Amino acid sequence: MTAVREIRLKSRPSGLPKADNFEMATVELPAPAAGEVQVKNLWMTVDPYMRGRMNDVKSYVPPFQLGKALEGGAIGEVTASSDPNLKPGDLVQSNFGWREGFNAPAAAVQKLDPAGLPPQTFLGAAGMPGLTAYAGLLKIAGLKDGDIVFVSGAAGAVGSMVAQIAKAKGHTVIGSAGGADKVAFLKEIGVDQVIDYKAEKDLTAALMRAAPDGIDVYFDNVGGEHLEAALAAARPFGRFALCGAISMYNATEPPPGPRNLVQMVGKQLRMEGFIVSSHWDMMAPFQRDLAQWVREGKVTWKETVFEGIGKAPEAFVGLFQGANLGKMLVKLA
Amino acid sequence: MTAVREIRLKSRPSGLPKADNFEMATVELPAPAAGEVQVKNLWMTVDPYMRGRMNDVKSYVPPFQLGKALEGGAIGEVTASSDPNLKPGDLVQSNFGWREGFNAPAAAVQKLDPAGLPPQTFLGAAGMPGLTAYAGLLKIAGLKDGDIVFVSGAAGAVGSMVAQIAKAKGHTVIGSAGGADKVAFLKEIGVDQVIDYKAEKDLTAALMRAAPDGIDVYFDNVGGEHLEAALAAARPFGRFALCGAISMYNATEPPPGPRNLVQMVGKQLRMEGFIVSSHWDMMAPFQRDLAQWVREGKVTWKETVFEGIGKAPEAFVGLFQGANLGKMLVKLA
Repeated sequence: MTAVREIRLKSRPSGLPKADNFEMATVELPAPAAGEVQVKNLWMTVDPYMRGRMNDVKSYVPPFQLGKALEGGAIGEVTASSDPNLKPGDLVQSNFGWREGFNAPAAAVQKLDPAGLPPQTFLGAAGMPGLTAYAGLLKIAGLKDGDIVFVSGAAGAVGSMVAQIAKAKGHTVIGSAGGADKVAFLKEIGVDQVIDYKAEKDLTAALMRAAPDGIDVYFDNVGGEHLEAALAAARPFGRFALCGAISMYNATEPPPGPRNLVQMVGKQLRMEGFIVSSHWDMMAPFQRDLAQWVREGKVTWKETVFEGIGKAPEAFVGLFQGANLGKMLVKLA
Repeated sequence: MTAVREIRLKSRPSGLPKADNFEMATVELPAPAAGEVQVKNLWMTVDPYMRGRMNDVKSYVPPFQLGKALEGGAIGEVTASSDPNLKPGDLVQSNFGWREGFNAPAAAVQKLDPAGLPPQTFLGAAGMPGLTAYAGLLKIAGLKDGDIVFVSGAAGAVGSMVAQIAKAKGHTVIGSAGGADKVAFLKEIGVDQVIDYKAEKDLTAALMRAAPDGIDVYFDNVGGEHLEAALAAARPFGRFALCGAISMYNATEPPPGPRNLVQMVGKQLRMEGFIVSSHWDMMAPFQRDLAQWVREGKVTWKETVFEGIGKAPEAFVGLFQGANLGKMLVKLA
């Protein structure tokens, strides 16, 4: 028997989650049954979308259950195996995050070949957030030559990939983020115009200054005021990929939408929401392109790392406080 | 010399236009110069989009000029011609509405073959509003088999065509309009579920009752609360064609947008604004389909007619007060 700790949802948060919405528990893992593996998690991810699953509402993924371990992406190492396809020492990726280890059917984990990258990259730039950026920009927004691209949450896991993919493809990119460190990072990765939204009173005016010719593509990670500014700055036939609205995930009263949505008619704008799981088919071309961009030095990434399963709730809440530069991760071993 | 009356924009309206934003003037038309025709207008249209042109803001069409005659669709009869291609008695369509007659280069008017329809139909069901419905539904919303369609402003010139085109193509249609006459008309043309929005306190709840399985396509003529309800009722991968937002055209303070726009992400919704002038290429297939639907008794229309140029401002303002059933027209001769 192996004792592992896990984080459970104790109560459903109202607004920004607090420490007492979570509880840590220790569970004993027996030896894996036939066809199962036992995995020791090395890394887990916290992502903004998890906030939605903490509410008891129907959505594209079922809500987390009270008293049960939370779930999410994780990278681990097989420690024991009763399946012929996996052996101790194999790196695997799974959705059994928020815990130090687990037993699962071998089919519920994917063997990971890190191809020279640090394994946790597959929770960020080379994984779901990277694919989100790639699919949103190329497929949903239909990026085409000459487009001027605006991305909010530009220093985050998804946003920083959006910015770099657009730059790698030769576009002018305007990025918005909060605080000097993030602004510096965005300049470092070649973003043409950086808006520190925390330093701006009037985000629309700031965007108009940063993009005097307007924007063609907006990749929205934030919602709210950012979306309103993007509508104001959009050129005719602009396309918006709506990836998330982190500014709203903890709202207890739904905030009003942009006051200028009516501009979508006159400017003939398109706005489309998406979730990455509808675009797994793009994973192979994404990873091919990414490998090349990494070789050419066109794409890099940052990580903000919390250590230990006990810090996972804090890391998660930090997402909504802008505590992360790049991918927010929890190192478990 | 022929004396004709015209309506000019005297001052820019704030909010709902008032009588004194308009002035009537009489102008004398000389005989048409070489290459010109003189036209006596029989019908003119008033359309909601004209409200936008009364503001002094940059948009997809330039603003109306103060002290100049307003413009808009009109059907007239050539009374004198100095151009070999047009002769007295020819019916023509032009953008020289808001006046009893005019001189213009022959190239600025289009000869109209009414093909057995009353000529004013080409200002409504068989003209711009009809094409707006057709292009918005088929191209922008990408109507496909099995879609459940919701249309607001469903008893209006565009909305009633949307409803009937969707019915002609075999769809379940939910229509929203205000008042008993409009509700009766929508039932008469086969709309499956009719919402009298003026009688509903909670439009979202009303739509959920009318469309218990949700909606796939929303054709938005109204904006505001209707858009919020449609977002709430949308099924995954729903598509919204944004045609207009009549509820907002007279707002002096821009009203907030839908509180639930964030649902676009989880439900992977697409929303696209459009203006009909980008879709003139669909006029020929539209008129072919329309002719067939009319023969089959699948499409009909209503008109609300004001008589005389002096009534044009009143007809226009009535658009925003729900005064029209079907196409709002002014009969000029």
